[in-house]
Amino acid sequence: MQHRDLTVFDGLIVANFSRAVFEDMRRGGLTAANCTCSIWEGFRGTMENVMRWKQWFREHADLITQVHTTADIARAKREGKTGIALGWQNLTGIEDQIGSLALFKELGVGIMQIAYNTQNLVGTGCYESRDGGLSDFGHEVIAEMNRLGILCDLSHVGPKTSEDVIKASRKPCAYTHCAPAALKAHPRNKSDEQLRFIVDRGGFVGVTMFPPFLRRGTEATVDDYVEAMEHVIKLCGEDQVGFGTDFTQGYGREFFEWITRDKGYARKLTEFGDIINPAGMREIKDYPNLTAAMEKRGWEEGRIRKLMGENWVRLLREVWGA
Amino acid sequence: MQHRDLTVFDGLIVANFSRAVFEDMRRGGLTAANCTCSIWEGFRGTMENVMRWKQWFREHADLITQVHTTADIARAKREGKTGIALGWQNLTGIEDQIGSLALFKELGVGIMQIAYNTQNLVGTGCYESRDGGLSDFGHEVIAEMNRLGILCDLSHVGPKTSEDVIKASRKPCAYTHCAPAALKAHPRNKSDEQLRFIVDRGGFVGVTMFPPFLRRGTEATVDDYVEAMEHVIKLCGEDQVGFGTDFTQGYGREFFEWITRDKGYARKLTEFGDIINPAGMREIKDYPNLTAAMEKRGWEEGRIRKLMGENWVRLLREVWGA
Repeated sequence: MQHRDLTVFDGLIVANFSRAVFEDMRRGGLTAANCTCSIWEGFRGTMENVMRWKQWFREHADLITQVHTTADIARAKREGKTGIALGWQNLTGIEDQIGSLALFKELGVGIMQIAYNTQNLVGTGCYESRDGGLSDFGHEVIAEMNRLGILCDLSHVGPKTSEDVIKASRKPCAYTHCAPAALKAHPRNKSDEQLRFIVDRGGFVGVTMFPPFLRRGTEATVDDYVEAMEHVIKLCGEDQVGFGTDFTQGYGREFFEWITRDKGYARKLTEFGDIINPAGMREIKDYPNLTAAMEKRGWEEGRIRKLMGENWVRLLREVWGA
Repeated sequence: MQHRDLTVFDGLIVANFSRAVFEDMRRGGLTAANCTCSIWEGFRGTMENVMRWKQWFREHADLITQVHTTADIARAKREGKTGIALGWQNLTGIEDQIGSLALFKELGVGIMQIAYNTQNLVGTGCYESRDGGLSDFGHEVIAEMNRLGILCDLSHVGPKTSEDVIKASRKPCAYTHCAPAALKAHPRNKSDEQLRFIVDRGGFVGVTMFPPFLRRGTEATVDDYVEAMEHVIKLCGEDQVGFGTDFTQGYGREFFEWITRDKGYARKLTEFGDIINPAGMREIKDYPNLTAAMEKRGWEEGRIRKLMGENWVRLLREVWGA
């Protein structure tokens, strides 16, 4: 088994995108990824981010290609490019307009997180003091996301809102990038009960390696990352699990200040300390080391194929309908 | 005692404002009122509404004048004009920017409702299935409203959020336009406990006459309106009570459709049926009939003066600081 033959899907990249990042994606043998194009932005700011992506698709067409369907992911693989599925980490991009969901879906946004860290019009994030659950407007939003085939991401969402969304959604939901609380207690991590709850209802867990959420923090290596995945597999089986690195490559202090304050500027929500990715997975070019770590841990080829991306593609086909 | 000598303050008017409405204000001997300039609008839409008001202040300077302070209310009385305190029924106008509160306050918006019927970024309205209370962002917003001297209005706010705001606010809060649930059960009406709770903490109750919230609905007369006030006075004393009509003069079916759908277009929140104001108080020119109904009920002059507007002015001086 060669890394370059695998379908490699990363459930979350939020890098400071540039040609250098896209080149690293190719070096790492990345087939496709959920790439963030909205966090705190409103409608116009998000549209501007989408515009910039459209320009990148033109300018870097030798490296990347937009994916709307899983057939597009297969095409990216064949063409030796990295497929970009645009995704949101928040629903601020729709502002108060349900109708805007259809526009963004048509423009290629196929994955949307329900809330980012704090409360929005739809639900509540994981750093909020209280989680009142999915709002009535939120129920309307979930129904429209289901109709359009947009994956509901719950990684940064509060526990009550997450439960409500999983129950309300007619399509499987995902934690695209989360770590098990059993290995490290953290408001962003998910309890074993939460992980079972989403998987029991057809949903999905993408395991993250963001150091503050790992047992050994900045001391972690790629082997700790595989350990976290194995915890989830033991709990949830190996068919509804993948990975979502949360690569922040190219970003510095300002970015982390922006994401750890409500709405980008208000009260501080959490302190990450130093962000040093696990040794062996420091950069986007390092995906081959992840495959190697799985082999080293004695995983069979079938499991590696699933965890590296095939499970992700099956989930997306189910949600996107193609 | 002559009606024309009273300070008459209406805690809520949401009319289809025009010269005809401003003329009726003068005919009715209205000294000043909280006039709505934002319901579902975002930042820009609300700014456009404020721009329109500034134009009206220029064009109809013979009838109306903007008030920033209670000294401005006294000046309006002296000049024989109606003072306009701009107010919001929702906090959507700030969108995600706490800093915008200072701009709007400087432009004359001295009263802001925390939520309108449904959930926003700050709190939850009275027609939402669940009320998760004041958000963490909401706590930041209330602190800034306190600092700037903007009155927190809770009329359309859910019970839990209302309680949280009353506890969090360092300045008195108001139900600018609400009716007692003891006389008519309705999600918009306030229980005796709620009315006591706000008044016990230095707050204020403006009694409304919006027909769906009155015991006799569209059969109500101005005497029923005074009955509702008297219920509140018995409960809360006569020093922290005023009136807030909720006049919708000049609006038709489209307006009521807009206000009874979440965000102006989404799911239907309530059905009002016919809106026919209490006989004797059909129009903005009819305030003299309210004074007469109070006299007919045997109220002493001191109470009439307080209820017609003096209590309102004292509250606003405390919150506005001038």
